[in-house]
Amino acid sequence: MDLWFTENHTNNVRFGVKIKKQLHSEKTEFQQVDVFETYEFGKMLTIDGIIMVTEKDEFVYHEMIAHVPMAANPNIKKVLVVGGGDGGTVRELTRYNTIEKIDMVEIDKVVVDVSRQFIQQTACKLDDERVALFYEDGVKFMGKKKDEYDLIIIDSTDPIGPGEGLFTEDFYADCYRALTSNGIMINQNESPYYEKERRELTRANKKIKKIFPIVKVYQFHMTTYPSGHWLFGFNSKGIDPVSNNHIDNWNKLGLKTKYYNTDLHRASFMLPNYVKEILEND
Amino acid sequence: MDLWFTENHTNNVRFGVKIKKQLHSEKTEFQQVDVFETYEFGKMLTIDGIIMVTEKDEFVYHEMIAHVPMAANPNIKKVLVVGGGDGGTVRELTRYNTIEKIDMVEIDKVVVDVSRQFIQQTACKLDDERVALFYEDGVKFMGKKKDEYDLIIIDSTDPIGPGEGLFTEDFYADCYRALTSNGIMINQNESPYYEKERRELTRANKKIKKIFPIVKVYQFHMTTYPSGHWLFGFNSKGIDPVSNNHIDNWNKLGLKTKYYNTDLHRASFMLPNYVKEILEND
Repeated sequence: MDLWFTENHTNNVRFGVKIKKQLHSEKTEFQQVDVFETYEFGKMLTIDGIIMVTEKDEFVYHEMIAHVPMAANPNIKKVLVVGGGDGGTVRELTRYNTIEKIDMVEIDKVVVDVSRQFIQQTACKLDDERVALFYEDGVKFMGKKKDEYDLIIIDSTDPIGPGEGLFTEDFYADCYRALTSNGIMINQNESPYYEKERRELTRANKKIKKIFPIVKVYQFHMTTYPSGHWLFGFNSKGIDPVSNNHIDNWNKLGLKTKYYNTDLHRASFMLPNYVKEILEND
Repeated sequence: MDLWFTENHTNNVRFGVKIKKQLHSEKTEFQQVDVFETYEFGKMLTIDGIIMVTEKDEFVYHEMIAHVPMAANPNIKKVLVVGGGDGGTVRELTRYNTIEKIDMVEIDKVVVDVSRQFIQQTACKLDDERVALFYEDGVKFMGKKKDEYDLIIIDSTDPIGPGEGLFTEDFYADCYRALTSNGIMINQNESPYYEKERRELTRANKKIKKIFPIVKVYQFHMTTYPSGHWLFGFNSKGIDPVSNNHIDNWNKLGLKTKYYNTDLHRASFMLPNYVKEILEND
């Protein structure tokens, strides 16, 4: 059998993945959720036809979203994950004994259920006793919060469909208010390479700069996302992610990682000139 | 019309590019050479069906292959480029007034001719008066050289077909002999992500370590190459590419670049853990 999943990275660029078997397909209240067994990437979760997670390279995304803020502030005790239904971000966070509470607000319970059923590699720590799951709209959830979290991770889909509200200035202002005085917000920041993702990067960065005093961007290699060149935003009330005495202390924790290390941590904030220009001229 | 070029990144992963028009197609003595006009990437050169150069992102590859060694040693006067028929590497090198001589040895004259005809963006400096073109086998050419070049850049295709001899231990030993006492050799080092390129990375690294005392690897984002995560090797008789007082002086040259900068220079040598493990365990 010759079965291929194809994602259009732009109208003129396609990424194709050979499929062993479709494991699940479900139209939820919010979106189309599919799980595939692939030859190259292991199990693969797609939402609305876009690759979200593959077993082969999810470690890159989840290590970079979790360990960068945790190394920048080892005193983080209470964390909120917005989205992240596959559980990979929570899995990395639960490795820190110093974290006391992880709230996760995911609008679509089906994503969590399907991940639990098919992708234990990411979902394996959703039952950690420190984790509380809230199946509701992240925007409404955030509106009720004040001075509560040391770290908010916006582990969202693209700003189309149910994830759209997570890319607004009002939402970023609500995040700011929900953070403690040392608070850090990490956001999924798209990519600088193709026009569609570059536009969203520019828009998000512009909005966040109005709210947060420290707004920096870091990069990593994510093969299964369009262009393979992906970014997160590191935004805080004061903590700097690069000139920061805590970072090297992270090594004393003895956490084994496949992508992240503290040299790469600092290096990931060193951006190509064309990316710096996009961020400065927005 | 719906015309697509497809490259198999592995047997189970495909990269597709929508084509406006095929501009050239030629079976040479050595390989199949094609040029396309694409919607997303501008003009695109392929060899044996594999993307070599696109107008959209060749700047990443050519800036990283040329400026990293040039910043590490500003006293480079004589350079040899092996391969690189599209001219992009030579273009970046000609921006240095301090370089006196650039030899380029390319086995396939057709690649140069076709690039001159269709891709002036990369071929535009092949007529610089300091450039001498040699249409011969890089392996034989190197065998005749001793203590002659301050920098050798192996700007090769993959180690299959005519590029194969450029990935042997004998060839690396010939490069070492052809270099001056401060010599640097840069090699195209493939990618850590998919098995095929990872195997070539491992093999090349292992061989070069037997010859050169300083062997380091640096990474960059190359969307149109398999996985988007690509590497060069920085190998030298003594010059270190990171702990090096020259690097910041590069900024005084006033060269405008789109990807390279001196912060990124140092950062590009900070590799993910899984890449470091590949290089240490080879």
